[in-house]
Amino acid sequence: MRLLSQIFQPIITIPKGAKIKNTEITCKSQKLLLECGLIRPSSAGFFTILPLARRAIDKLEDIINKCLKDVNAQRISLPCLTSARLWESTGRLDDVGSELFTVEDRHDKRYLLAPTHEEAVADLMADVGPISYRQLPLLIYQITNKYRDELRPKHGLLRSREFQMMDLYGFHTDHTCAETTYNNVTRVYEKLFKILNLPVYRVVAPSGDMGGTLSHEWQLPAAAGEDSVAVCPSCSHASLASDVCTQCGKETDICNSIEVGHTFILGTKYSVPLQANCIRQGSNPAPLVMSCYGIGITRLLAAGIEALSTESCIRWPAAVAPYSAIVIGPKEGSKEWSVHGAQETQGVARCIGDVVGDVLVDDRHALTIGKRMMMADRMGYPNIIVCGRHSVENPPRYELYANNDKSPLLLDINELMQFLRNGSSNNVVECVN
Amino acid sequence: MRLLSQIFQPIITIPKGAKIKNTEITCKSQKLLLECGLIRPSSAGFFTILPLARRAIDKLEDIINKCLKDVNAQRISLPCLTSARLWESTGRLDDVGSELFTVEDRHDKRYLLAPTHEEAVADLMADVGPISYRQLPLLIYQITNKYRDELRPKHGLLRSREFQMMDLYGFHTDHTCAETTYNNVTRVYEKLFKILNLPVYRVVAPSGDMGGTLSHEWQLPAAAGEDSVAVCPSCSHASLASDVCTQCGKETDICNSIEVGHTFILGTKYSVPLQANCIRQGSNPAPLVMSCYGIGITRLLAAGIEALSTESCIRWPAAVAPYSAIVIGPKEGSKEWSVHGAQETQGVARCIGDVVGDVLVDDRHALTIGKRMMMADRMGYPNIIVCGRHSVENPPRYELYANNDKSPLLLDINELMQFLRNGSSNNVVECVN
Repeated sequence: MRLLSQIFQPIITIPKGAKIKNTEITCKSQKLLLECGLIRPSSAGFFTILPLARRAIDKLEDIINKCLKDVNAQRISLPCLTSARLWESTGRLDDVGSELFTVEDRHDKRYLLAPTHEEAVADLMADVGPISYRQLPLLIYQITNKYRDELRPKHGLLRSREFQMMDLYGFHTDHTCAETTYNNVTRVYEKLFKILNLPVYRVVAPSGDMGGTLSHEWQLPAAAGEDSVAVCPSCSHASLASDVCTQCGKETDICNSIEVGHTFILGTKYSVPLQANCIRQGSNPAPLVMSCYGIGITRLLAAGIEALSTESCIRWPAAVAPYSAIVIGPKEGSKEWSVHGAQETQGVARCIGDVVGDVLVDDRHALTIGKRMMMADRMGYPNIIVCGRHSVENPPRYELYANNDKSPLLLDINELMQFLRNGSSNNVVECVN
Repeated sequence: MRLLSQIFQPIITIPKGAKIKNTEITCKSQKLLLECGLIRPSSAGFFTILPLARRAIDKLEDIINKCLKDVNAQRISLPCLTSARLWESTGRLDDVGSELFTVEDRHDKRYLLAPTHEEAVADLMADVGPISYRQLPLLIYQITNKYRDELRPKHGLLRSREFQMMDLYGFHTDHTCAETTYNNVTRVYEKLFKILNLPVYRVVAPSGDMGGTLSHEWQLPAAAGEDSVAVCPSCSHASLASDVCTQCGKETDICNSIEVGHTFILGTKYSVPLQANCIRQGSNPAPLVMSCYGIGITRLLAAGIEALSTESCIRWPAAVAPYSAIVIGPKEGSKEWSVHGAQETQGVARCIGDVVGDVLVDDRHALTIGKRMMMADRMGYPNIIVCGRHSVENPPRYELYANNDKSPLLLDINELMQFLRNGSSNNVVECVN
């Protein structure tokens, strides 16, 4: 149980057309995250993640870690600085050039703030290799900051210059093995987006600068999206741009979308120049066949909010809301206050905490219940519980606004806990092993 | 339960005097972490954290997060890039100059890869301020990568150029309030080091580049340490350099030590130039009084290993060992193997996992038990369980080497679980709230 008054949440109101740190407010998630005191720009394209957003990201990381356990992926951390020499050897230093932040150390050695780590991880494999076929397939991943010197950072966390990303790398003896891994990992992606309750489409994509033989983008429809996806209303097949469904011939619906993930079979584009080899049974060393998988974590959080929210109220994927429930007690000086004070509210919150795990108490008792309910609704907590006028009845009853419903359920404490127990079991991450 | 054969742990043997990526092997923790496949240098002063070390760091972060909850500290993430302009305004750009990595973006705006965030966090407070006295004291922290372009990176994770750090910042209306917070947070430090079972000394220190009015270093005695601490054998009082104990007049023992934390009352050194103000009750806005607290996470892990290990075997603070227990089954072709195969071992591991939470099975059955025991001892798992010749008795009994003891206990499954239950309850983090 945590008291809202103790939480660092600098709420502001942004007038229409205003700029924050010289940045225009161009989309819903950016405006809501700023106004609700969840993020704060430090300079163009750089953001401080404030406590409530940090909690949401912690939950998202936790879900991703658990999902990746299912495919035996192991977490590591590569340095955020990659030697420029490695990117020269694969030719990407010139290809991606202008978007790279580069750094020189005191000995004039050049590094880049890596936007992705194919070179670094292939170099690691070369360093510890050649890898025996017995150790393959090998899946390693990290959750770290990535950097991209965007020409025009915009849309808040949707296109920032420092962002958090999960990047997973697969190593294989051959293409067949890489394809099996690719199928396993993309199933993990599908599971993750299902847990988050986000309608993310997987679409065949060009491999671009990354190279390789097969690639999918993972696109979430949202009006502010800078990409677009064509979805068949009949068979739900999705593609990047096609008026007609290639699967069933129907006319597609084209909508804006946000890329939240990208997956690749890379082949040997990185392992050949960096000499990352494996030893196959009874044959000579050969280049490792690589695959890679990215999920923009800060972007996915913002994209989820962009897709689900109204213009004025945040709506989270329930599994990553900063708190699952908020309890609002009576206003100071009210009849209910004179009976219970703040005790009742905290008692109810403790019971709820036992069921949902994390609960917030809005202890700003100088404010009316109505005012605090409005703010809780704006923040989008999945369960809002009010200890109002029915809390002095016998037995006491509480108003529950579940899943952002406008009309409350009136429940006694046992019914309330029962309801939340069932609700939270629906949100439970099933991939724990 | 996890199988050791599936873990990415590139074990190597480093010949005496050898260099790895042009770096000399100069201390025990560096050698052991490299040889046991826990870290890997990518270039001088930069390291990849491999899966088993990543697990240890996850545990350490988790303990730190839980301890900081006790003082109501809230986690945020500041960008790793700080505008150079902020450091100009406090004068530190020149003071720390040569150790800073700097970056220019495509618009020639200059940033630094922050080694610490006093300027960034004071700028945040100025941006959201002035802060009401009702919100103070406010404690916010982050766990992120920090950067220092060391002239001579050395000793592996003890002095690297990219490192993980917990940095906590306190904001107060006045010095008295800052002192109260300082005492609360230093008690958290003491609790943390007690959980880790590390004899860390708190010594009064000069404030140096950081400025401020009060400062302590937190020093862990270790032969490879680059600092030194004078400890009184009589009253245990410690200081940075003093032949005679200032508390009781006895002669001190001076030993090498590693700085694992540093704490400061900063006063208004940062809040004045950056205009981070608070509003005190019934008075005009005034500069916030700041305090700050750092713990080098990657350094603390290495320092713990440096202090506890033997020349050839890692010894962890038990609470952060990558796995609490490892189970070793019979060798293929042995009498026990012919009775049980691998089934028995995994069954035992599952039972143990229920008690200690995390358990590893050494499934490399082609190796002898002795060879695998030697490797498990070298890795320093706090509990090594052998399903050997006594596992075919009725009832089956298992050898337990607990806390790196050389002589085993011979226990049946119930005794084994009982023993581990008691042992693991001693290591439990008591600060969960």
